[in-house]
Amino acid sequence: MDPSQVTIPPLKDLTIDNITENVILINSLCQDARMKYVLERLVSHLHDFARETRLSSDEWMAGIQFLTATGKICTDVRQEFILLSDVLGLSLLVDSINHPKPANSTEGTVLGPFHTHEAPTLSQGDSISHDPAGEPLLVVCSVRDTQGLPVTGVKIDIWETDSTGHYDVQHADREGPDGRCVMRSDAAGKFWFRAIKPVPYPIPHDGPVGQLLKKLHRHPYRPSHMHFMFEKEGYDHLITSLYLRNDPYETSDAVFGVKDTLVVDLGRVDGALAAQYGIAEGAWLMTYDFVLVTERETADLRAFNSKVALDKLGRKVRIENGLPIPDLD
Amino acid sequence: MDPSQVTIPPLKDLTIDNITENVILINSLCQDARMKYVLERLVSHLHDFARETRLSSDEWMAGIQFLTATGKICTDVRQEFILLSDVLGLSLLVDSINHPKPANSTEGTVLGPFHTHEAPTLSQGDSISHDPAGEPLLVVCSVRDTQGLPVTGVKIDIWETDSTGHYDVQHADREGPDGRCVMRSDAAGKFWFRAIKPVPYPIPHDGPVGQLLKKLHRHPYRPSHMHFMFEKEGYDHLITSLYLRNDPYETSDAVFGVKDTLVVDLGRVDGALAAQYGIAEGAWLMTYDFVLVTERETADLRAFNSKVALDKLGRKVRIENGLPIPDLD
Repeated sequence: MDPSQVTIPPLKDLTIDNITENVILINSLCQDARMKYVLERLVSHLHDFARETRLSSDEWMAGIQFLTATGKICTDVRQEFILLSDVLGLSLLVDSINHPKPANSTEGTVLGPFHTHEAPTLSQGDSISHDPAGEPLLVVCSVRDTQGLPVTGVKIDIWETDSTGHYDVQHADREGPDGRCVMRSDAAGKFWFRAIKPVPYPIPHDGPVGQLLKKLHRHPYRPSHMHFMFEKEGYDHLITSLYLRNDPYETSDAVFGVKDTLVVDLGRVDGALAAQYGIAEGAWLMTYDFVLVTERETADLRAFNSKVALDKLGRKVRIENGLPIPDLD
Repeated sequence: MDPSQVTIPPLKDLTIDNITENVILINSLCQDARMKYVLERLVSHLHDFARETRLSSDEWMAGIQFLTATGKICTDVRQEFILLSDVLGLSLLVDSINHPKPANSTEGTVLGPFHTHEAPTLSQGDSISHDPAGEPLLVVCSVRDTQGLPVTGVKIDIWETDSTGHYDVQHADREGPDGRCVMRSDAAGKFWFRAIKPVPYPIPHDGPVGQLLKKLHRHPYRPSHMHFMFEKEGYDHLITSLYLRNDPYETSDAVFGVKDTLVVDLGRVDGALAAQYGIAEGAWLMTYDFVLVTERETADLRAFNSKVALDKLGRKVRIENGLPIPDLD
């Protein structure tokens, strides 16, 4: 850019006390009002963090190296920055902001870093897991709207670990997807499949995030759960999980995902169900009725909640394209 | 860790409003009071940032991808996270916090990502640059303490770009270090060397940080400067640069490093100097008297400033090992 085109006041002799306003000033050349607001808040918080901690040069460098190592360990099948966001509670927070749930709808929870787009499309009754060491589980669910009507043809992603607590992508020698599938709800809004009983497992802790947890004296375990993701046009994308009651990590999930409404009691498949679903009597049984919210209702609720929360913080904003920007009028 | 050893209250049903206190609670298992404080402030600011912007899931994912790409592009000779810290003003802020300067001492400025430990040790009068296209420059400096006494045997790292505005490490085909050296101040506290006249240059902008600057409508240029780093036991590590007056980017440095006391006017080598230093008459001349501060004086000033600043913010802290931690008594 031609320096003569720079329209901001001269930036020089910046200090602990005036650096923030000046960085915000130069960033305000940005033409995108939403990005400008996000950057303004980012820079303010980043600088306040350094000022309030009087961050030392060594700590700053440790942070640089931590972030670099976190990026370096990421691969197509390992997302360490999502893991970092998860263990800092940011993922749960962002999900809660973006997918507000009216009463009586199914709550969302963290996506986690193990969803992939490489999953087989299966039919009702198929098995998503091929781990012979897993304890057989029959899952029978329905998908309804907030009026109680069945939602048909919903695309449902389902994923879980094997009996050792590892997702398929965590095995270096894997030959293809396992423990995951995509299926659709039927004409009655139902879907059912065979799987294995979820087990608790540690999130990957051989990398920077694991080292951080260790320094914080935190364990890396997640309670036993199965992931579900629901997509259908007109409905808010629902990312959630079902957790097994009385798991040893039920109240200390490393990524803060457990919600009481998502905790289930497993039953046992009786003779009638065994005959109906073609599975051995005595297998574990998990049932759940998921309730989706329309996109419109979610968008309205999200905008309303944003306005209320930001008003409470004394920030004068207006909602544009569903997101707040400063209201300068 | 044995889940029965977890001493924190049950964490479940976390929401937009209570996630922060609960993440801080679980992190408080950390045995290191300073790390606990740093994490508490980090989590508070990270969450407030998400709450104040009502960060969207797409923006969150864009952030994850940006950080991942920033890590991925880092190599032994490219540190994109330092560059990010630089363009967000964090580097200047952290330097200012850690290296407070009493009046009449030389101010510090950003280190930047181009210092390396692979630089030849040169003697007085040697040339640090082998770029035939550069305009010859004689640099004659002294190092003194705040009493005006010469400081001898100081280890001085010096680095600058070539005449095209690139550091040696930015050339894929480089054969070894160039445009940089390590030398020592002599018995009179002086040091002098031959170099080339610094030129303005863009920071590397072919990566994520460059894309960010573009979206912010900011140019990536740094005004012409030469880097200096001074180390001697007992003295505060001084990381600084000298800037050329009237550079087109003097007041819009992409990394906020320019300070008036570090801006110099170049002169010309006259006949007497040419004879004294064995350089052609008419070459550019840069002179500067650097003033170092003792480590002790800096530590005291840093602790004092921290206490004053945090008192002003209403944070009750005590200084331990030179750094603030909450004072709970």
